[in-house]
Amino acid sequence: MPNNSPPDLIRSRLREPADPALAKASVSVDFDKRLAPYDLAGSLAHAKMLGQVGLVSEEDLRLMIHGLQELSVEVAEGRFEWRAELEDVHMNLEKALTDRIGPAGARLHTARSRNDQVALDERLYLKDVVGKISRLIWELREALVKKAGEVKDTPMPGYTHLQRAQPVLLAHHFLAYYEMLTRDSGRLGDLEKRLHEMPLGSGALSGTGLPIKPELVAQELGFPDLSGNSLDAVASRDLLMEFLAFGAILAVHLSRLAEDMILWCSAEFNLAELPDSLTTSSSMMPQKKNPDGAELLRGKTGRTIGNLVTLLTVVKGLPMSYNRDLQEDKEPLFDTADTLELILPLAKAQVTGLKFNKSRLTELADDPYTPATDLADSLVLKGVPFREAHRQVGALVAYCVEKKISLAETEAEVLKRFCPQAEPDILKRLTLFQLLAARDKTPGGTAPKTVQLRLTRAKEMLAEEKDRRGAG
Amino acid sequence: MPNNSPPDLIRSRLREPADPALAKASVSVDFDKRLAPYDLAGSLAHAKMLGQVGLVSEEDLRLMIHGLQELSVEVAEGRFEWRAELEDVHMNLEKALTDRIGPAGARLHTARSRNDQVALDERLYLKDVVGKISRLIWELREALVKKAGEVKDTPMPGYTHLQRAQPVLLAHHFLAYYEMLTRDSGRLGDLEKRLHEMPLGSGALSGTGLPIKPELVAQELGFPDLSGNSLDAVASRDLLMEFLAFGAILAVHLSRLAEDMILWCSAEFNLAELPDSLTTSSSMMPQKKNPDGAELLRGKTGRTIGNLVTLLTVVKGLPMSYNRDLQEDKEPLFDTADTLELILPLAKAQVTGLKFNKSRLTELADDPYTPATDLADSLVLKGVPFREAHRQVGALVAYCVEKKISLAETEAEVLKRFCPQAEPDILKRLTLFQLLAARDKTPGGTAPKTVQLRLTRAKEMLAEEKDRRGAG
Amino acid sequence: MPNNSPPDLIRSRLREPADPALAKASVSVDFDKRLAPYDLAGSLAHAKMLGQVGLVSEEDLRLMIHGLQELSVEVAEGRFEWRAELEDVHMNLEKALTDRIGPAGARLHTARSRNDQVALDERLYLKDVVGKISRLIWELREALVKKAGEVKDTPMPGYTHLQRAQPVLLAHHFLAYYEMLTRDSGRLGDLEKRLHEMPLGSGALSGTGLPIKPELVAQELGFPDLSGNSLDAVASRDLLMEFLAFGAILAVHLSRLAEDMILWCSAEFNLAELPDSLTTSSSMMPQKKNPDGAELLRGKTGRTIGNLVTLLTVVKGLPMSYNRDLQEDKEPLFDTADTLELILPLAKAQVTGLKFNKSRLTELADDPYTPATDLADSLVLKGVPFREAHRQVGALVAYCVEKKISLAETEAEVLKRFCPQAEPDILKRLTLFQLLAARDKTPGGTAPKTVQLRLTRAKEMLAEEKDRRGAG
Amino acid sequence: MPNNSPPDLIRSRLREPADPALAKASVSVDFDKRLAPYDLAGSLAHAKMLGQVGLVSEEDLRLMIHGLQELSVEVAEGRFEWRAELEDVHMNLEKALTDRIGPAGARLHTARSRNDQVALDERLYLKDVVGKISRLIWELREALVKKAGEVKDTPMPGYTHLQRAQPVLLAHHFLAYYEMLTRDSGRLGDLEKRLHEMPLGSGALSGTGLPIKPELVAQELGFPDLSGNSLDAVASRDLLMEFLAFGAILAVHLSRLAEDMILWCSAEFNLAELPDSLTTSSSMMPQKKNPDGAELLRGKTGRTIGNLVTLLTVVKGLPMSYNRDLQEDKEPLFDTADTLELILPLAKAQVTGLKFNKSRLTELADDPYTPATDLADSLVLKGVPFREAHRQVGALVAYCVEKKISLAETEAEVLKRFCPQAEPDILKRLTLFQLLAARDKTPGGTAPKTVQLRLTRAKEMLAEEKDRRGAG
Repeated sequence: MPNNSPPDLIRSRLREPADPALAKASVSVDFDKRLAPYDLAGSLAHAKMLGQVGLVSEEDLRLMIHGLQELSVEVAEGRFEWRAELEDVHMNLEKALTDRIGPAGARLHTARSRNDQVALDERLYLKDVVGKISRLIWELREALVKKAGEVKDTPMPGYTHLQRAQPVLLAHHFLAYYEMLTRDSGRLGDLEKRLHEMPLGSGALSGTGLPIKPELVAQELGFPDLSGNSLDAVASRDLLMEFLAFGAILAVHLSRLAEDMILWCSAEFNLAELPDSLTTSSSMMPQKKNPDGAELLRGKTGRTIGNLVTLLTVVKGLPMSYNRDLQEDKEPLFDTADTLELILPLAKAQVTGLKFNKSRLTELADDPYTPATDLADSLVLKGVPFREAHRQVGALVAYCVEKKISLAETEAEVLKRFCPQAEPDILKRLTLFQLLAARDKTPGGTAPKTVQLRLTRAKEMLAEEKDRRGAG
Repeated sequence: MPNNSPPDLIRSRLREPADPALAKASVSVDFDKRLAPYDLAGSLAHAKMLGQVGLVSEEDLRLMIHGLQELSVEVAEGRFEWRAELEDVHMNLEKALTDRIGPAGARLHTARSRNDQVALDERLYLKDVVGKISRLIWELREALVKKAGEVKDTPMPGYTHLQRAQPVLLAHHFLAYYEMLTRDSGRLGDLEKRLHEMPLGSGALSGTGLPIKPELVAQELGFPDLSGNSLDAVASRDLLMEFLAFGAILAVHLSRLAEDMILWCSAEFNLAELPDSLTTSSSMMPQKKNPDGAELLRGKTGRTIGNLVTLLTVVKGLPMSYNRDLQEDKEPLFDTADTLELILPLAKAQVTGLKFNKSRLTELADDPYTPATDLADSLVLKGVPFREAHRQVGALVAYCVEKKISLAETEAEVLKRFCPQAEPDILKRLTLFQLLAARDKTPGGTAPKTVQLRLTRAKEMLAEEKDRRGAG
Repeated sequence: MPNNSPPDLIRSRLREPADPALAKASVSVDFDKRLAPYDLAGSLAHAKMLGQVGLVSEEDLRLMIHGLQELSVEVAEGRFEWRAELEDVHMNLEKALTDRIGPAGARLHTARSRNDQVALDERLYLKDVVGKISRLIWELREALVKKAGEVKDTPMPGYTHLQRAQPVLLAHHFLAYYEMLTRDSGRLGDLEKRLHEMPLGSGALSGTGLPIKPELVAQELGFPDLSGNSLDAVASRDLLMEFLAFGAILAVHLSRLAEDMILWCSAEFNLAELPDSLTTSSSMMPQKKNPDGAELLRGKTGRTIGNLVTLLTVVKGLPMSYNRDLQEDKEPLFDTADTLELILPLAKAQVTGLKFNKSRLTELADDPYTPATDLADSLVLKGVPFREAHRQVGALVAYCVEKKISLAETEAEVLKRFCPQAEPDILKRLTLFQLLAARDKTPGGTAPKTVQLRLTRAKEMLAEEKDRRGAG
Repeated sequence: MPNNSPPDLIRSRLREPADPALAKASVSVDFDKRLAPYDLAGSLAHAKMLGQVGLVSEEDLRLMIHGLQELSVEVAEGRFEWRAELEDVHMNLEKALTDRIGPAGARLHTARSRNDQVALDERLYLKDVVGKISRLIWELREALVKKAGEVKDTPMPGYTHLQRAQPVLLAHHFLAYYEMLTRDSGRLGDLEKRLHEMPLGSGALSGTGLPIKPELVAQELGFPDLSGNSLDAVASRDLLMEFLAFGAILAVHLSRLAEDMILWCSAEFNLAELPDSLTTSSSMMPQKKNPDGAELLRGKTGRTIGNLVTLLTVVKGLPMSYNRDLQEDKEPLFDTADTLELILPLAKAQVTGLKFNKSRLTELADDPYTPATDLADSLVLKGVPFREAHRQVGALVAYCVEKKISLAETEAEVLKRFCPQAEPDILKRLTLFQLLAARDKTPGGTAPKTVQLRLTRAKEMLAEEKDRRGAG
């Protein structure tokens, strides 16, 4: 009976125990134990294949399946005892299996290396996470569309440079985030397609000489293809980098939404209010109602960028093929995945919970100088060159600002002086409603009817995606 | 006649010249002048549309077309004089046009804002760059495949942890990079698909009220779709981020290839040599032959990661919609694009130029302890549990190391002592050739015939892609 | 007469010209030409030393000095013609020298390598830049103190979570940035101290065997010490990294100041206005007054973080000693230095130019619920446990919010109901003036007299620093 | 008796429980519980001060001291039960105190806010960590010096571009890292000086109106100064950023040391061997002896760079003063501190454990073309211009390489042909010993006697630092 005490599993050739400093740095089980369900699923598929090709006996396979299923339950119920001295999730589980089922357990690692094993575990984890996050993005997009539907006719001041520029519909603002998140979702879908290869069978780096059938493992685990190069399979981490980049871009989008909300909920903007359930008060200033949720949403972007940098830097300049540096790939991966699973529902709750101050939104949308652009455009239609129209209107606005009157209050005579070609009643006609309605010349304009079309299109697309997922 | 002196183009309402500190920070023409060909192409398409819908007269359109074409030539020939006081590429070109063609030039900016104009310019630039880089990746992949074909039967030591692990084919090593670059190419293709929307018509943020037909501009410029949300069109930069992330991942791949080459060409590894044309000598040590090309390849990864961080950080937390911070998006974009256009051909030259030391590659591939894995596997086939086989072989290797003999030199009696179930002549049969040939159980294994299949597949794929591009 | 045609300077042993891809990647003169004044100063000091120790003749030295001084003038006047085929600043200058003065020029590189030469150039550059930026920080700190002095008695709402929390003095707000910048200045001073070693004499990596006296060079160039290890001298870049980290932290501070200004100048906050000279208008919306300066200040933080990442990533994992990757250290260095030289004066102009809306600042500082904290504190002084006081006041505030009255408007009876131990007239006494004046218990509190003390202290410190610099 | 159930501690004004998504994002106790010892020490000092100034009674103070001490023991022994619903370390501890000692506990937060409390906790933590890491750097520097002393006379090939360039002493190589780490240590010392201000008393943002004496707290906790600006005290995080930047630079240094070790221990370089205790074997290839420790050392650099980016990005663009985003400052701080505490001892173990292959080191140091530089130098001493000498020697080396002979094997006649001025026996005299001994012209040269001086100086400096620390 072999002495399978754990250090022996990997240190058989070495005659000294690991130095404490190395031992400490080598332990990854405190974070990679999260791969346990995927490791067990992979081992189960691998074991079945070993049975099918005759590399393990029927009896041993039965023991292995039973043992692995038992371990799956213990892990799921949080009863499994992880041991740091066994270093990683793989050794912990294999040792536990062997402790229970004896020599049959010592056959599990046949035709497998930790290098291809962890590559498989990470892909299974990633497939799972991609699915979850894909649904969470869908839910946030749906919440944005729903909110846009609710506030459909509410105008708001559109900002550039945090200065009021032109009125837009509040629904248009929400749909802008819908567009960004739709592209984020597209990126995630593209990554999902690239997760099609099953890496087991790549061995430590060169494949295996044992008569395995990796296609059986792939089939069992739902991969359409097998890795086409064993070195690449164990050495590459670009799918993880791609996920981290996707996550950072998505988080940047959410940070902008968060910033908008923080501004809107300030007493100064006073455009919206968050429900009590989405704010906190202060331990010293009980009257405060702080948008902590939005601030966390914004702040958590930092770590997603940091995680991306971590992994890119770790892999940069590594020679082929597997190097132990790659142990460092897991924590940034888990952290970005966890962060996205945290902030997507938080963003959804924020979007859903926001209550708007319609009268103030309307008032600010109706800024005294907002019609300037459309006034200039009306001159253009009269044949004034755009730049000249722009100059005339600019001079008029400067005059109004000095006189502290709005454009609408400008007398016809004054208008004529600055803009000789202007129709005398043009400023009366450039109402907030009119300014909005006129923006119907492009599918992306903010005119109510255009926004309604986009809203309908968004709902259809969400429904289609849901059907596809449901069917898939 | 309007006073179109340039500061007036944008400062009409303001009564003071820009503070020198602001003026200096505001100038972007020294870098954004690179967008000139795209800006002119966009203006041309825009002008034609303005003519078609009647917003400019036929005569004015004729003048505009002529003026824009003239400017295109001057820009292309490097004769255009850029003026810092005009701040950016857009103002420089518009001012030059107006100077030449008079009031007709002042009509060009009709129904357009710098916000949607720059969004269009960046997309046109990106489409162009994506196409170029796509071809460069294709060429590098082809060079890798060609090199793999040339060295087809050459074995090499496969490394993990920079320790010789198992023999692989040198062709297999090159094909590993082919796989990585194929995924990089896939990522770029996915981004290309996301560049389908033409943003002009989004105005400053809300669309326009003038009766334009943006679909004509889109058609002229080869965009299948129009932006679906004007706020998103002027405020988002995720397509740029995606490109920078793609670039950083690709550069990380090339940095690994570079590291391999640097190692191979060291006197200690002595596996390969670079031609003189790809090395430099030292100003103080004339005998040196330094792999500067490979080092630059590795080093230039840093900036691609830095550029990505720059843009993510710039956009993080910005409120909707356009903010001047976004001026900072161009330099990282250009720098990563330029870097990729620099390092992809460099990598290709390196791959193509490398000469291999076949005898040393073969010798090192035939490491005295390399057969250990296959010896353990042979025991597994005899029914020994994998972990027990592993333990037995580990003990045997330790014995051989101490005795300073290779596994092949082990006497049958010694073999029997450590591995009782081993076939007596097994070590004779585990030749380098046999170790390689056995790795044919998975499509990604390093067996010569498997590698040949992958090579053929790669050539077919490259040809298909070429056809598609040629046709497209 | 030697053939010193430039490629020969470094490629003498190599029989092929550089591959175009390598040639292109190798050219650094388009950016490292900025080191020319430092390279020439270093060469001058080096030449003098060579003369003093007799490694070059007096006549040759005279020629070298004359030639180098001539080149210095040409470079300073922008008349020097840089040639890309000579790759870098060092080769360009040496070649030009040799072209002018013949064989004497070919003696300049005696006992020197490009590796220690560039290490010296970078330190001379850094010393220069550190001095400049140190002065610019001093000027910004002075501007902050001056502004604080100007607005001395103006209260403003202090914000946490972008919610009004407690009143503070506007001067206190400016002095907070003064503190941050004082620490930034301290960091830069610490770096300056670490720039004490002169690296020339380290050769390519191991020192030199020629009888030089590097202490003469150090003396000439103002370095108190010599490098203590030649490998370290040519291989390390931590002083550059430290500078880039300093720069990123400083830029983050300025980004916060910029954010404050952008908020203050929004129509919604309306706390301050920027002069026309520090804003821009829009090309489409002439009524806009955009705080572009503040936005650029904020946006340019991104590149300083990106530059830091670039250099850290480039150096990470490089083996000893010099590797060509290190060519990549210059662009991030220059870019961060340039950025700081751009944004520090910009920040100063913004701080100096801001005009405040005192009445609105006072009105918002006097928020209806601001006295809550001090009311709770008054209960604490009556013996109510802090948390209980907090609970009572919280309930009272909630009541007031519902009734839409301010704390000051609360009737005595109501106050008694919620806070039985409160003095009946306490809310009358908690005026804005009183709330501010009470914060005098710590040197960092916002009470007017405390702020005055800090202001005086800051002025003294600035004067002391000026004296020290002036004397030094 | 107040209802101090935890949500009430901070949500008294709010009428709804936190939304689950916010509740989840708000919980920080799983990581900030690490601040517990510092939080308790701060609370103890704060409580004593409250007693001294009479804000709490003697009896209450006695209860608070006793309660806090009890909690300290429980925390230290790992018996304290952390509750996620209490969100953070501060609320957990305050609630536990109040549960035990009743109303006295509810007085602890008098004149304090979580904003200044966490600022204090982080500084106490940082002071502690800085001390620990400072000692660990000292220990690593000592180990480097010790190793340098052990290998004093061993030559090695010095590398540039990973090509053998000139011989150096192995001790010189170790001392190069000693220099880098000495600068790292200097940076940490500078940061330590900047940690002199005690922030408590800054309240939420503006100070406090209660009659406290923060100088007593500062004295108790060993801070020489008090914060000079309350807004700065609660809003700034630059000391943390500075620590993270320090950590990243240090880690980059260790990554280079690691790279050297990985190369040295490869079979190809074969310059050194790690003891079994610092390597691992493979689960599939028992003959492997992998330098996992060095790889982890190299790989863990990634996260230190990522952590720095995270914090810089989080703080960038935040308005004054405290914002909830700042919760995100702790994890990168802890992670970098932990990483440094892990990798510094690991690096020390690696340095100490390395065994060198002296004969191979000597052999490779004695490279056939190494004397090239010194041959050129000898020509310079004969009056040949350096560049001409360089050209002559370059041509000679090229000849030798082609003829496959070493420089030493060159016949006098051949030497004369290429280098007419060379002394005929010069190549005989340019022995390895001579090449090394000649590099004594600068304090940083690699001559044995120069290295010995530096070694002695390093030992003295280490001893001085130890004394200072011991005394301090």
